[in-house]
Parts: sequence; C-alpha cells; structure tokens
Amino acid sequence: MPHILVLNGPNLNLLGVREPDIYGSETLADVEASLVAWGKDNGISFELRQSNHEGDLIDWLHEARDEADAVILNPGGLTHNSVSLADAVSALEKPVIEVHLSNIFAREAFRAHSTISRVAAGVITGLGTTGYLLAAQALAAQLFKQEEG
Amino acid sequence: MPHILVLNGPNLNLLGVREPDIYGSETLADVEASLVAWGKDNGISFELRQSNHEGDLIDWLHEARDEADAVILNPGGLTHNSVSLADAVSALEKPVIEVHLSNIFAREAFRAHSTISRVAAGVITGLGTTGYLLAAQALAAQLFKQEEG
Amino acid sequence: MPHILVLNGPNLNLLGVREPDIYGSETLADVEASLVAWGKDNGISFELRQSNHEGDLIDWLHEARDEADAVILNPGGLTHNSVSLADAVSALEKPVIEVHLSNIFAREAFRAHSTISRVAAGVITGLGTTGYLLAAQALAAQLFKQEEG
Amino acid sequence: MPHILVLNGPNLNLLGVREPDIYGSETLADVEASLVAWGKDNGISFELRQSNHEGDLIDWLHEARDEADAVILNPGGLTHNSVSLADAVSALEKPVIEVHLSNIFAREAFRAHSTISRVAAGVITGLGTTGYLLAAQALAAQLFKQEEG
Amino acid sequence: MPHILVLNGPNLNLLGVREPDIYGSETLADVEASLVAWGKDNGISFELRQSNHEGDLIDWLHEARDEADAVILNPGGLTHNSVSLADAVSALEKPVIEVHLSNIFAREAFRAHSTISRVAAGVITGLGTTGYLLAAQALAAQLFKQEEG
Amino acid sequence: MPHILVLNGPNLNLLGVREPDIYGSETLADVEASLVAWGKDNGISFELRQSNHEGDLIDWLHEARDEADAVILNPGGLTHNSVSLADAVSALEKPVIEVHLSNIFAREAFRAHSTISRVAAGVITGLGTTGYLLAAQALAAQLFKQEEG
Amino acid sequence: MPHILVLNGPNLNLLGVREPDIYGSETLADVEASLVAWGKDNGISFELRQSNHEGDLIDWLHEARDEADAVILNPGGLTHNSVSLADAVSALEKPVIEVHLSNIFAREAFRAHSTISRVAAGVITGLGTTGYLLAAQALAAQLFKQEEG
Amino acid sequence: MPHILVLNGPNLNLLGVREPDIYGSETLADVEASLVAWGKDNGISFELRQSNHEGDLIDWLHEARDEADAVILNPGGLTHNSVSLADAVSALEKPVIEVHLSNIFAREAFRAHSTISRVAAGVITGLGTTGYLLAAQALAAQLFKQEEG
Amino acid sequence: MPHILVLNGPNLNLLGVREPDIYGSETLADVEASLVAWGKDNGISFELRQSNHEGDLIDWLHEARDEADAVILNPGGLTHNSVSLADAVSALEKPVIEVHLSNIFAREAFRAHSTISRVAAGVITGLGTTGYLLAAQALAAQLFKQEEG
Amino acid sequence: MPHILVLNGPNLNLLGVREPDIYGSETLADVEASLVAWGKDNGISFELRQSNHEGDLIDWLHEARDEADAVILNPGGLTHNSVSLADAVSALEKPVIEVHLSNIFAREAFRAHSTISRVAAGVITGLGTTGYLLAAQALAAQLFKQEEG
Amino acid sequence: MPHILVLNGPNLNLLGVREPDIYGSETLADVEASLVAWGKDNGISFELRQSNHEGDLIDWLHEARDEADAVILNPGGLTHNSVSLADAVSALEKPVIEVHLSNIFAREAFRAHSTISRVAAGVITGLGTTGYLLAAQALAAQLFKQEEG
Amino acid sequence: MPHILVLNGPNLNLLGVREPDIYGSETLADVEASLVAWGKDNGISFELRQSNHEGDLIDWLHEARDEADAVILNPGGLTHNSVSLADAVSALEKPVIEVHLSNIFAREAFRAHSTISRVAAGVITGLGTTGYLLAAQALAAQLFKQEEG
Repeated sequence: MPHILVLNGPNLNLLGVREPDIYGSETLADVEASLVAWGKDNGISFELRQSNHEGDLIDWLHEARDEADAVILNPGGLTHNSVSLADAVSALEKPVIEVHLSNIFAREAFRAHSTISRVAAGVITGLGTTGYLLAAQALAAQLFKQEEG
Repeated sequence: MPHILVLNGPNLNLLGVREPDIYGSETLADVEASLVAWGKDNGISFELRQSNHEGDLIDWLHEARDEADAVILNPGGLTHNSVSLADAVSALEKPVIEVHLSNIFAREAFRAHSTISRVAAGVITGLGTTGYLLAAQALAAQLFKQEEG
Repeated sequence: MPHILVLNGPNLNLLGVREPDIYGSETLADVEASLVAWGKDNGISFELRQSNHEGDLIDWLHEARDEADAVILNPGGLTHNSVSLADAVSALEKPVIEVHLSNIFAREAFRAHSTISRVAAGVITGLGTTGYLLAAQALAAQLFKQEEG
Repeated sequence: MPHILVLNGPNLNLLGVREPDIYGSETLADVEASLVAWGKDNGISFELRQSNHEGDLIDWLHEARDEADAVILNPGGLTHNSVSLADAVSALEKPVIEVHLSNIFAREAFRAHSTISRVAAGVITGLGTTGYLLAAQALAAQLFKQEEG
Repeated sequence: MPHILVLNGPNLNLLGVREPDIYGSETLADVEASLVAWGKDNGISFELRQSNHEGDLIDWLHEARDEADAVILNPGGLTHNSVSLADAVSALEKPVIEVHLSNIFAREAFRAHSTISRVAAGVITGLGTTGYLLAAQALAAQLFKQEEG
Repeated sequence: MPHILVLNGPNLNLLGVREPDIYGSETLADVEASLVAWGKDNGISFELRQSNHEGDLIDWLHEARDEADAVILNPGGLTHNSVSLADAVSALEKPVIEVHLSNIFAREAFRAHSTISRVAAGVITGLGTTGYLLAAQALAAQLFKQEEG
Repeated sequence: MPHILVLNGPNLNLLGVREPDIYGSETLADVEASLVAWGKDNGISFELRQSNHEGDLIDWLHEARDEADAVILNPGGLTHNSVSLADAVSALEKPVIEVHLSNIFAREAFRAHSTISRVAAGVITGLGTTGYLLAAQALAAQLFKQEEG
Repeated sequence: MPHILVLNGPNLNLLGVREPDIYGSETLADVEASLVAWGKDNGISFELRQSNHEGDLIDWLHEARDEADAVILNPGGLTHNSVSLADAVSALEKPVIEVHLSNIFAREAFRAHSTISRVAAGVITGLGTTGYLLAAQALAAQLFKQEEG
Repeated sequence: MPHILVLNGPNLNLLGVREPDIYGSETLADVEASLVAWGKDNGISFELRQSNHEGDLIDWLHEARDEADAVILNPGGLTHNSVSLADAVSALEKPVIEVHLSNIFAREAFRAHSTISRVAAGVITGLGTTGYLLAAQALAAQLFKQEEG
Repeated sequence: MPHILVLNGPNLNLLGVREPDIYGSETLADVEASLVAWGKDNGISFELRQSNHEGDLIDWLHEARDEADAVILNPGGLTHNSVSLADAVSALEKPVIEVHLSNIFAREAFRAHSTISRVAAGVITGLGTTGYLLAAQALAAQLFKQEEG
Repeated sequence: MPHILVLNGPNLNLLGVREPDIYGSETLADVEASLVAWGKDNGISFELRQSNHEGDLIDWLHEARDEADAVILNPGGLTHNSVSLADAVSALEKPVIEVHLSNIFAREAFRAHSTISRVAAGVITGLGTTGYLLAAQALAAQLFKQEEG
Repeated sequence: MPHILVLNGPNLNLLGVREPDIYGSETLADVEASLVAWGKDNGISFELRQSNHEGDLIDWLHEARDEADAVILNPGGLTHNSVSLADAVSALEKPVIEVHLSNIFAREAFRAHSTISRVAAGVITGLGTTGYLLAAQALAAQLFKQEEG
C-alpha cells in the first residue's frame, strides 16, 4: 500500500489556535484524521509530522527516500527563505506537492515568493485544510497510474 | 443545480497540441468532458470557454455574476500582466480558483508572478489537467456547504 | 459644435455596481447624462463608450482623429500596462485628459504607475464621477479659446 | 461662508516668470484673483499663500484645522520627497486636493512620484492654472453637499 | 509556392500618418505591395494583416500553423508586455522574424525590452519599412534551403 | 546638573490631537512635565522644543554643543529623508537617542528606513511617550557613569 | 506575580566574549541577574533562555502562551531573515519587545532590516545590555496598568 | 563690477569645527576672506551666506536674479534630496557652480547622488576650500568673456 | 564606389570554430568573401577587420571618418558594457548597423542589453552570417539614395 | 598536533547519492578518510561532522574555539541566507575556509551569493571533493608557519 | 621642477571635432599648449597623452609612479565601467584629479556614475577645457605646499 | 609533459608593490618560480604572462587552444565587467581555474560579482599566492587522471 508523508513546518502546531480567521479552526490532528479516513477507502496510508526545526524537516525528507512514496509539504514560514529545504525536496526523487492553507499571494509581499515551488511537482494554495486532501488525491492518481503502467 | 464556468485564456485552445512535454496531450474538450462526467455524479453543471482576447474573458466574468455560482480560471499568458482581468475577478463576488497546468514557478522568472492570485480564492499549479478537477471539487465542497449552512 | 469622446476601459461597465465604497454608485449612463446636460448649456456634444477590449479603445482613439475634437479617457485596468493605448493617445494630435474615479495613488502600489499619463494633456484622479465633468470643463475652455484665437 | 486655503510650495513665487513654456505666464496673484472672483459668485472665500520653507507649509496646514474648510495644495519641489508635508495633510481631517501646473508624469522620472498623493483626496495635474479652479469646484461641490446633508 | 504571413500589431494601421519623422511616410499597403512585387520575382506569396486587438494577432499566429510557412511580426505596442503573444510565437513551430520600424533602443527606456525577441528566430530594428523586405529575404533563403535540403 | 535637550520634529506639536489611535493622547507638554518630574528626582534638567522647520532642529543641535550634555530626538517625518539632520547629529559629539512613538516598522514601507539611526547612539520605537522616559534613563546612566569614571 | 520570558538567539551565548568592542563585556548571566534583582524590587519574575536553534526559540514562544505574560526577544542573526520566528511572535497574543545590543542601523546594510520588528510591540537598539532593563520597565508598566484597569 | 553670491547649506556653519579630518580646519569666514582678497585683485565682489534652512537658500537664489551675476553653491546635506533647491538653481538663468569640500564619491553610497548637479553648470568636489576659489576663477573667466563678447 | 567597413570585436576570430551550434560554421573570411562578391555586382567595396582589443575598434571607427561611407559593426562581448565604443559610433557621423549572429535576446540575461544599439542606425540579430549581407543591403540602399538625392 | 574541524551543512549527508552529475559519487566518509590519510603524513588531525540543523553548525563553531585550530566549512544550503552562521564564523578567531563542491556561480542565480564568504579567510568552489584537500593544505601551511614564526 | 602627467581616454583624440556643442572646439593640443604655458610661469612641467586603449592608460599610470608627481585624468568612456583603471589610480600613491569636459550629471543616466571618482583626490566636471587648468592649479598648490612643509 | 598557462590581468604587474597589506609582498616572478619548481617535481611545465590589456588576455586564451592543456586565470580588475574575457574562457574547451589573491567577497560590493566564475571550472579566492599553487594541483590531478583514463 503506497505511503504518503505529510510534513508541516514552523508554527503549524498552532493550527486551529493561531489567527483562525486566516488559517481556520481545524487542527493538524483533524487533518491527519481526514487523510487517514480517506486513505482507508482508497488504499493509501498517511503519516503526519510537524516540527519548528528546519533540520527536522530535512531529516524527514531524507527518510522519505526509503519510507514513503510521495510527500505533501506545508513548509510554513520556511517557505520564503529556506534553500536547504528546497535542496532536500530536490534530492528526493519522488513527487512532492507544496500546500499552503492561506492564499500566500493575497498577504504581505514577502509571502508571495516560495523557494520550494521551483522544485515541487505542484502547488496548492488558499484552499484551507482541503488543500491537503486535494494534494493526496493528485498524488494517489499518479501513484496508482505508475503501478498500473 | 450549481453551475461552474471554466474560463481559459490565450493559447489554451492549443492544449494537447502545443509543447506536449510541458502541457500534456489532453485537449480542452477532454477537460470539459471529464468535468461534465464528474459533475453528473455530483450534481454540478459545467461550461468551458476559451478565448485569445482578454476582453472576452472579462465579459464572461461579468456574465458570471448572473449565470454561474463559481469560476475556474486559467488565464494563460494574461496571468502575468493583466490588471483588468484581476479587477474583473475581484468585481465578481463569487469564488474563483486559478489553475495553471504547468508549474509556473519552475519555468522562466517572469512566469512566477501572477496578477490574478492576489484576488483569487485559491491557486492550483503544476498538476496538469487534474488541476481543473481538483478546483471543481474544492468549489463543489464550498457551494454545497453554503446551501446547507 | 465641438464634440468630445468619453472612452472607458475594462470593468467600467460595472460602475455603480462593483465595489461602490471605492467607485461610488453612479453608473456610466448617469455620467453620460450629466455630461450631455452640461454640454447643452455650454455648446458641446458628448458621446460615451465603454469596452473591455483594449483593441476597441485603440480603434476609437483612431476614429477620434476624424470624429472628435478632444477625448476624456478612463483606461481602467489598462492604465498600468498598456503601451499600445498610450501610443494611440500619442498618435491622436488632439487633447486627451486621463480620468480615474478613485485615487490610484492611495491604493495598491501597482496602481500608482500609469503608462498613459506621460502622453496625456492632464490627469484628474480621486474625485469620483466629478472628474469627468472637470475634464470636460478644462477641454471646453481650451477648445473655445482655440476657436477664438 | 466656507473658506478654502490655497497653499503653494517652493519656487511657485516665480510663477509667470520661470520657464513660462512649462508653467505659463499667469502669476500666483492672477490665480488668487481668479479664485476670489469665482468665489464671490459661488459663496466661497479663498486665501492664497506661498513659501519656500517646508515648515511654513506645515504650520499653515495646522492652522487650517481651525481656519479653513478645505485646502488646495501645490507642493512644488516638496512633492517628491516630503514625508512631513504628507503627514500634515494626513493630520488635517479636511479635504485636500493636490494640484500641479505641469504634467509631472511627462517630465523627468523623479517627478512622477508624489509623497502627497497617497493622502490627498484627489490630484489634478497638467492643466495649468485652470487646475486650481477645477480643484475649487470639486471642493465647493463637496462642501455644499455636506452642508445640505 | 511558400507563403509568408506579415502580421502587424496596434497602431500600425496609422503607418505613414502618425509621427512620420519617427516611422516614415510609407503605409502598410505600400509595404504589402513591395513585398508582393518582390515575392513575384522570387516565388513567394505574402499576405499582410493588421489589428489593434492582441487576440486577433494570436488567432492569426494559430492559423499560420496550417496556412503559412513563416511569419514576419511587427507587434507594435504589444512588444513590451505581451506574454500571450510570445507564447503564440513559441507555439508556432515555424520561423518568425520580429521587425520594428524605429530603433526601439534609441527611444524611451520601456521600449528597449521585448517579450517577443526571446522566442523569435531573429530581430530587425531601426531600418524602417526596409526591415520587412530584409526579413522576407532571410526567411526566403531559409525556406528554399529547406526545400532543397 | 546634566542637561538634556528633547527635540521634536514636524507635526509633533499635534501630539495628543492627531490620529490618537496611532500616537496616543498625551501632548508634548505632558511629556515634558513627566521628564522634568523624573529629572527632579534624578538630578537632571530637561528642555523640550518642537519645530516644523528642519533648519530649526539643525540650529538647536548646533546649540546643544554648548548648552546640553545629551539629546533625545524624535525627528518626525524628517526621519526618512533628512541627510542634513543626520549630519547635524553626527557633528554633535554627544550622545543622541532617536525616539519614535509608533512602531515605524509596522507601518508603510517608506517609514521603515531612518537616515538618523545610522548616526544615533540608540533607537527606541513603538513604546509611545514611555520611549522618551526610557531614553532619558539610558542617557542618565551614561552621563553619571562618565562623571564618576 | 507577572512573568517575563527573555529569549536570546544564535551566538548570544558568546555575549561578553565575542567582539566586546561591539557587544560589551557583560554576559547573559549578568543580564539575567540584573533583571531578577530589578524584578524582586518591582514584583516581576524573569527567566532567560538562549539557543542557537531557530526551532527552540519558536518552541519557547509557543510555551509562552501559557507560561509568561510578556517576552523580551533578542533574535541575534535570525533578526534579518526568519519569517518563522516572526510568525511565532505574531501568533503569541502577548506583548513582545525586540532588543538589540548594538545599533544594527550603524553596521552592515543587511543588518538594517528586521523581519521581527513588523510584529513586535516595540524595538530598542544600540543601548547595550541596558536595553533589556528598559524593555522590562516598558513591559512592567504595561502589565501593571492592565491589572489595575 | 561683477558680483558672485556664495551660498552654503546646512551644517556648513560648523566648517573648521566639525570632523576636521574630512572637512579641514578653515572656517567659512576664512573662505570669504580669501575670495574677497582674490576678488579685489581681479575685479569681482563676493558675498557669502549660510543657512540651515532649505527655504533660505531658495529665497537667496531668487534674490540672485537681481543681485548677482553668478552663484557658487555648496548645498551641504541638501545635495542628496532637495528637488526644490535644484528647481531654484534651474530657475535662475545665471551660471551656478556646485562645490563640495569632501569627495562625496568616496564616502557613504547615499552621498554619491546629487539632485543639484543635473542643473548646475559644473561641479567641483574633493578639493577642500580650494574648490571655492577654483569655482570663482571659472565663473570670472566666463563673466569677463561675456562682457567682452 | 562607396566603401563599407565591417568591424568585428572580441572572439569573432573564432567564428566557425567556437560553439558552432550557436554561431554556425562559416568563418569571418567566408563572410568577407560573400560581401565582396555581392559588392562586385552592386558597386560597393568592403573591408573586414577583427580585433580582440576595444581600442583597435575605436581607432578603426575614427579612421572610418575619412575612409568609409558606412560601417557594419559586430561588437562581440563589448556589446554589453563598452561606453567608449558607443561614443566612437556616435562620433562617426555616418550610418552604422549593429549585427549579432546569435539572438542575444534568447541567451543569458546580461546579453539582452547593448550599449551600442542606442546610437546605431539599426540592429539585426539572430540571423547568423546572413545578418551581415542584410546590413550591407540596407546600407547600400541608403548610400545610393543619397547619391541620387 | 594541529586539529582541523570539517563542518558540513544541510543535505551533505546525501553526498555521493544526490544528483551525482553535480556533486560526484564520493561520500562524506570518503572525504574524511582522504583527509585523515593526508593528515597522518602531514601531522594534522581531522574530524568531520555533518548536520541538517543550522544550530548544530553554530554550536560546533563555538566548540571549535577550544577544540580546533582551524575550520573547513561547507555550509550547504545555509550558504545563501544564514546570518547566524556567518556571525559564528566571525566570532571564531581562527581561520575558516569555505568550500563548495559545485561551482555555485554556474548554477541558479540565488546560489551566487554567500553570506559566509564575507567573513571567511578564503573560498574554494567548483573543484569537487578535491576542494576539501586544497583547503586543508592552505590551512596547514598557515598553521605550521605560525608555529615556526 | 614638479611634473604632471595629463592622461586622456577613448575618443578624446576627437576633441574639437566630435560634437562641438557638447565638448567645445579646442583640441587636446590646445589644452596641452595652455597647460605648458601656464606651467612655465608657475614652475611646473606637463605632458599630455591620449589613447583609446584602457591598457595604455593603466601602463601610463604605472609609469607615473617614477615619472610624475601628480596626474590629471580624463577617462572618457572608461569612466563608467573600468575597475582596472580605478585600481591603477588607487595603486599610484600620488594625487590624481579626475576631469570631465561636459557635465556628466546632465546627460544620459549611465554617465552619472564614475568608477574612478571613489579613488580620485577630487573631481571637476562640466567646465570644459578650463577644468584641466583648474586641476593643474589645485595640484600645484598641493605639490608646492608639500615641498615647503 | 602537460603545460599550464598562468594569465594575469590589469595591475597584477604591481604585485608585491601595490597595497601589500591586501595583496602580500610576493611578486609575479616569485609566483612563477614557485610554480616552475613545483612543476619540475610533478612533471608539469608552467608559463606566466601578465598584461594590462584585455585584448592580450583574450589573444592568449585563444593561443592556449593549441599551446596549453589548462589555464590559471587571475583577471584582476577585468573580473567584474568583462564579457569578452568570459567568452574567451568559454570558447577554450580546456579547464580554467579563476584565482583571486584577496577575498573579493570581503571588500567593496562591486568586487563580489565575477563575470568569469560562471564559465570557470572552479574558483579560489582569498588565499594569497598560495591560490595559484592550489589551482595548479587541482589541474594537475585532473590532467593526469585524463591521461590515465
């Protein structure tokens, strides 16, 4: 059964608590529950992790080389300046979809640039926690097509 | 039954023909067929239009005020410089999701900036024609929630 | 009797409807009526046109070479990036006054630059639909002075 | 009877003398006479002042809090770099219209940016001394509407 | 017999009329006549079109896929900001030479950048209407070499 | 007894009146009273001056060479563009602390740069009128340490 | 008794050792001792932490939601590029004062911009370790006022 | 006998006192004495003025229209941002030479740009107080040539 | 018989050898032979020179004042930064056409700007060695027209 | 025996695995083995460490104050944005040579700037794992010269 | 007798011929004659050289180490981009005054920046060939003062 | 026996003389002697050349096509602006290592960018004349590996 790692960067542990008018009231645990439920019906397993340390996210992307078939990545505040994280995405030879809860293009100017997008397979922004599920569907479609192909 | 207008900008009539290594081999007609099929099962109707004229897209966004419940917009080459199109999106008080087939952040630098994203509800890039279907799902979820709410 | 063409660009057909807190609740038809009324008392005829197509505005500026004595131009969203429209203004050897309803300098940064202003005779911004009437007066004064001169 | 203060910045005392091909041959005294004459017929009083000192203009804007109902401001060379003057305009809770005799957008690049426009109610440029009269009309219309309202 | 489409953008219908000191006094009809005459002697047919609508030029570039062997393109004011037109040039898998009548590098700074040049086979600027004929020769040489090759 | 001059630039005479949500409701006279009271207990005298004229502030900084032991400077709108004021601070060989009432980094982008900070001993921003008292304490500590040393 | 967390970023563990001509010879332990002593007299408790890991600082800011009433933050080298740290400050709905020992505006150009200042309540720079005590006073004043209010 | 006005801007009253390693130890009075002495031998009178107020310098440039034949201008810190002063130089239809004591190109980057140089007849920098005398000679040569011519 | 000098800058001696996929396999000697052959039929003589020294090219442009009627100039790597070469072109009061073999707009960003184009009569890029012949034709047409005129 | 610490930043644990066409197929263990072997012959000991955490690298640079005589630093993706790491290099009063395996100047534009280089003793780029050995030689030469001197 | 070398860069051999409205009608030979004549009366010898080759100017600046006491340098078009020439000026430990005939600040924007000024003792611009004589006087004063001192 | 050409640009003939605190006291002759000595032991011959003329360096790089197996290049002041030199490096299909004596990243900002680095095999900066020897070793290793391979 294909396995998708769902990695979340700095401050996303506050999801559902911090500025709910921007980020909504669902928590990361809610997100994981939704993904796991959907995965059961669709034959995919999910694991969600969060860290405020850039190094942890890089370590996990390295582990994904052996442990996962694809990655959903919400880099949080690292989105806008981490070259190291982008290099780790690029080094992983598996599909990575970048997800942002809020529409980063409708906020402060410095949020409109992502160092990650250049090396991601795709980007989904502004659709709240639904973005994770859409990313999962896109990856699932791709993974099952590979298996069949 | 909710109605979603799917608007496509310059050069997208060549979809499936032009640079298939970047944009894939599906045509716009294929995209519309997929959406309509999915819509039948999910109680949503779709209409897809394409024009190489910025003015047509603006006219259609104005028509959407009366004729549609939401819009999926792939602005093509107008993405990067059309303030008028963005103003038309902003003037439409209904959800608009911006879709790009290729990952515009992984191509030439001038493609990384969208005048539309600032006023869109969300953005989906780099996931090929699947992006239209994901946008449809996100809009459907939102429209049915409103009806219930 | 001198004739003034009043050209309006993209989205201005929504005037009175779209974002009334920024643009007010008068429609373009109201503007035309005011101008025509004022023109009757002052011996000037007016014709107001609107299009969402840059090409239409250029075509009309070309027609103005034969059909009008001056032009009032509200370029809408084309203000900020249309070189072609500016070239058409420049090619018309008659006075053109640029009018904006809102104060474009008090909004988003990208609205503060106009490609048209460089070649306009003058610019009136931020005074709502009154701006059209002020432009008409300025042009009238100039046209009658020429006739006398 | 409403009172409008007409403030003029550095070098405008040379109006009618300096570079008449750009600025015309009318003097500030002529401008004041025209405004006063127009004001007599329309029930508004005007007072015109000029200084080459930024501080004087700020002092006068402060005085306008008690002494005037609106301000017409031609900031001269201070247009392009004075934050203090803009703050004084912003602190005055009455309408201020910025007027420039020449079309500042058709001259050197550094003249195309005004620190004042962001906080002015409106801007009129390139229409010579007629600009003052148009500003007066716009303010008059607004002041009488308030009285009635 | 090879066929070359000669496409002309906004304001070029005024050629021979507008600012003759910059653009010369020949009209587009004169240009077409010269090309047709030269083509008769050299076994190439020409068709010249002009529009002030970006969308028309894109439509015609799409038609050229079936109807022409090469294109000469003078994008007029669209030169400096149209990504859509550049995408249409890029999507046409046939040689396109960009022609400008005036030396765009010797005029205002904003004219020195062309979005089209990046995807054109070559660029000829500043040589007036002769530029069209030189472009025709370059394309003819290439087309006949292909036929022979 | 050490003497500290407290200089205030353009528009600060409106303190307590202008935009109280940004600047608070205390007046400059209140600030001076607080400082004098604190000074009595701590053996330091204070004198507070305000001008809307850059030249006055420079003159006063020159006078401080003979008349004061340290300066607290709130440059108001001159913060962002006055090289002359910065040169006067630099020419005074005594400690100068720059104070801003509001957090200039949380407002418009042009307020985030100060020409004065480069030559000030320190900067205190965003702490309202408390900032003056904190600056006084920091200067007092330094002045008494010198006396002892 | 109100509690204030004093967080210090990368390299501040070297305080008193590294480049003493810029940063002085007091250590972080000295700073903590001073704050605790002052706190005893003034009814406030303090805890000082330091880490070279951005993630630790973010974790501690999250802990401050439950454990502290206010934060003094010296972000060290993270000042100039950490969006994640700024987001953590912004997510903490309690007052944060940013402190820098040296005058960051009088050093290399890249030090003049702080990503944190935008979301801090206030900023104190260039006053050495005294800056911490001033920040404590400002926060104390605010906390006791709230209690009374 | 020709008359030359020697105008000096902010902080130049400190000449000979402030930072003598950059600006030398001669005072403005010394400079005036040297010029007057040289003028006696060469049939030219000089008058030197200094102010820290931009407005005074502009007023004096206006007076020079009637009272002087040429101007030597050291704008001090106004060099780098005063458009108003440059406009006053431009409005004076007599030769103005800009003088700087230090080499403004060998100091901080912001000193390398002068708003005045664009409209001055010439610029002399980095030659200390000798610069005034060289400017006087250049103006004298020009004035006597005109008289003869 | 009119004489045209064909000047070639740094590295063009390697033409036909260096990176033939970009520059083709014809040598400069081939180019000269083609031009001379064409010139025999059309009554024009040609001389081709190449140097890797900027100074030689400037010397030759000075010689062209007496020895040539027009110049074809391929500045090679000097295209992008030589003001001296541009000044020499400008000082030559005869037509100069700038030729580039490759399309400099389709390569690295720094190649897209030419210091020469501003002062050239026209520019031909991207058409390989054919560009020289087209330039020759354009100059010939102009030279013979002058003779007749 | 002198001791050199060899510190490696994010993603360098993948050396020999990730993108071998850019970074080669040697691993960090191979690099350490080579250095140790060379060190045995030359009387220098080496220790190689790697972390994906910026904080670890800073901690290790602090430890090097007591434990090492010099440092070789390959900062990986932290090269381009870490001020904290540069401050740690600067705080270490011992020679640090920055090494990059690939030629960072021949890749994406954002890789061409290093925040570290400003404070490093020297930089070696583009020479693969040989770069470490060259850095070791340069440091060895310097360390033994010091011992002798 | 002190010796001053007067070095002139590209295109200055055309002085008196090229664009006399900008550069005047005196030739370099005239300049040398004036300097020699003045030098005879004042005990200084002069030698003037010109080259269109940057390398020659650098060679001559190196020779000046042994052969001259000071240098007057008009770098021509090399002013704006030659780092090598600036390094040669910097390496010569003798006074160098930079002279420009025209006011480089009143021409194209790219002429307003000089790489040389940063390392020159002083700069004289816009005073035509008189500039050379003024530079000679300034250097003479300095050289004789040194001899006396 | 492999042959390495060691090319040195402008002002490097002053090595050991000019600013020894930056560049050290060894001369180019010393460098050549060291390289030749090392080469004797390692089976490689060296030839060192220096010129202040960009054209000479380009000529020598062209000669290296036939005469050398690799090149060490210290471009001196040409580092920062010579496209022609970079093109010559690129045209040479043999390894070139760029060497700088000083750390160009720790000096003026304009020295931090090299046009050459993009096309060099590697870059060594800041290690003084040792840099030449390290470059020689790196090239030697590569050349002998090729011979063996």
